[in-house]
Amino acid sequence: MELVSKQRCFKGEVRKYTHHSTATSSKMTFNIYLPDVALAGKERVPVLYYLSGLTCNEDNMITKGGALSYLSDERIALVTPDTSPRGAGIPGEDDDWELGTGAGFYVDATQEPWRQNYNMYSYVQSELQQLVAGSFAVDASRTSIFGHSMGGHGALVLALRNSGHYKSVSAFAPICHPSTSNWGRKQFTAYLGSNENAWAAYDATELVKTYGGPMLPVLVDQGDADQFYSSKQLQPSHLVIATETSKRPVQLDSRMQPGYDHSYYFIQTFMKDHIAFHAKHLRA
Amino acid sequence: MELVSKQRCFKGEVRKYTHHSTATSSKMTFNIYLPDVALAGKERVPVLYYLSGLTCNEDNMITKGGALSYLSDERIALVTPDTSPRGAGIPGEDDDWELGTGAGFYVDATQEPWRQNYNMYSYVQSELQQLVAGSFAVDASRTSIFGHSMGGHGALVLALRNSGHYKSVSAFAPICHPSTSNWGRKQFTAYLGSNENAWAAYDATELVKTYGGPMLPVLVDQGDADQFYSSKQLQPSHLVIATETSKRPVQLDSRMQPGYDHSYYFIQTFMKDHIAFHAKHLRA
Repeated sequence: MELVSKQRCFKGEVRKYTHHSTATSSKMTFNIYLPDVALAGKERVPVLYYLSGLTCNEDNMITKGGALSYLSDERIALVTPDTSPRGAGIPGEDDDWELGTGAGFYVDATQEPWRQNYNMYSYVQSELQQLVAGSFAVDASRTSIFGHSMGGHGALVLALRNSGHYKSVSAFAPICHPSTSNWGRKQFTAYLGSNENAWAAYDATELVKTYGGPMLPVLVDQGDADQFYSSKQLQPSHLVIATETSKRPVQLDSRMQPGYDHSYYFIQTFMKDHIAFHAKHLRA
Repeated sequence: MELVSKQRCFKGEVRKYTHHSTATSSKMTFNIYLPDVALAGKERVPVLYYLSGLTCNEDNMITKGGALSYLSDERIALVTPDTSPRGAGIPGEDDDWELGTGAGFYVDATQEPWRQNYNMYSYVQSELQQLVAGSFAVDASRTSIFGHSMGGHGALVLALRNSGHYKSVSAFAPICHPSTSNWGRKQFTAYLGSNENAWAAYDATELVKTYGGPMLPVLVDQGDADQFYSSKQLQPSHLVIATETSKRPVQLDSRMQPGYDHSYYFIQTFMKDHIAFHAKHLRA
């Protein structure tokens, strides 16, 4: 693991690291925000993972999300991974913003040519979290996760598939039912193949129907002026209905926010609520 | 004036406009954040101008500065202009990040080939403010200004040259004495010519010695891990000494912030203080 930069922000530090990932057979980059108490080794702090959306990298949220003031106050670490391998050398990986670079979709690909590198599910769930837990003063037993759009999908999937691992999960404008929207069907076909049976393991609306484990608190915010909501890529109502009808131990608060779009202007508006939500469950 | 986009953020809207500027003989772009009370025409709100630094455009601060939550709460409008004309067609304007595009330095150029377009002083002080006052529900009698680096220099210069026009001025890591630092001498030579007598009108440390008018509240924050502070481009102590020795009606609070660099991680850390400082004087 190589330290690329460190920059003080509020009462803590943003650090950027690169490392070789075995899950993606490539170099990966992530940022971590560490409050002073963790930097000084005085306290193992709770840790929050944030997964970004299509076209984003590890920087978008940490620079534009407005999260760090709240994390500093709450003494919670934040980890922002990249959204895919980069420069894997796969033909066409940079040609389409919805596939390949910047569009890992938080799955473990089973199909060629993606199979060797596009394993963002295992990268985030296992490799990165082990690396972070082993390298910094974080308390891995108090981990939560959130994300935006494709990353909201990723956060929901990781939380629903790993009962008890996350204290809480939240999402801004997540892709809630990817098996039935263009964002989802396109990537699942490429990464997982055309047999749709393999898709349910990466679909929050399907996973919520069979979730077993401790009560999972879930917060979802969706802006009603979001073009991708209008074009039915996000479908928060599908997740609501599946949660209500399946009666699994999932406590979903799904909120519609009038006037907001898909951008970081929307995300920063509700960041305070999301950090407070996670802080409550991480400190419970 | 043409509306490019509008996006809801907190209790207000970020709007991007383009317009033809007579001051710069070119198309210019700016963002404005308008709280709901101003959008609804219920209240003429105070207005805060923010000038960005070298290489920046109208977006950097409004997306990464973390200001909008505070401005929403305080019901203050924010205007973020670009840092120079773009595409003026001047040979070499895009070749050097310290000159030309992204580096207008908030002067009115007197030298060729910049003279016709590089008039950011008049653009910001007169043309843009008249346009904003005439187009939106802002109270121009309650105007303040701030900025970062080159834009901190611009904010200080505009406030010191226009007694009584601004209720308060603040800056993050401003270029305080540009006549004596490489950032400043280089641009002044190009835009204003090699006769240094012409430079004092754009140098805060010189202007503070002759300032007359109502008491001007000034807040300056500087990080001590800022590479441009170390390389003596910023020189906040020069402004402090000139203010103290000249005994003009300038109330300067110049703060050194340990560990912070020149980036928006530094700026967002102290944004709350700067907005509170301006709000106090705008509402006085």
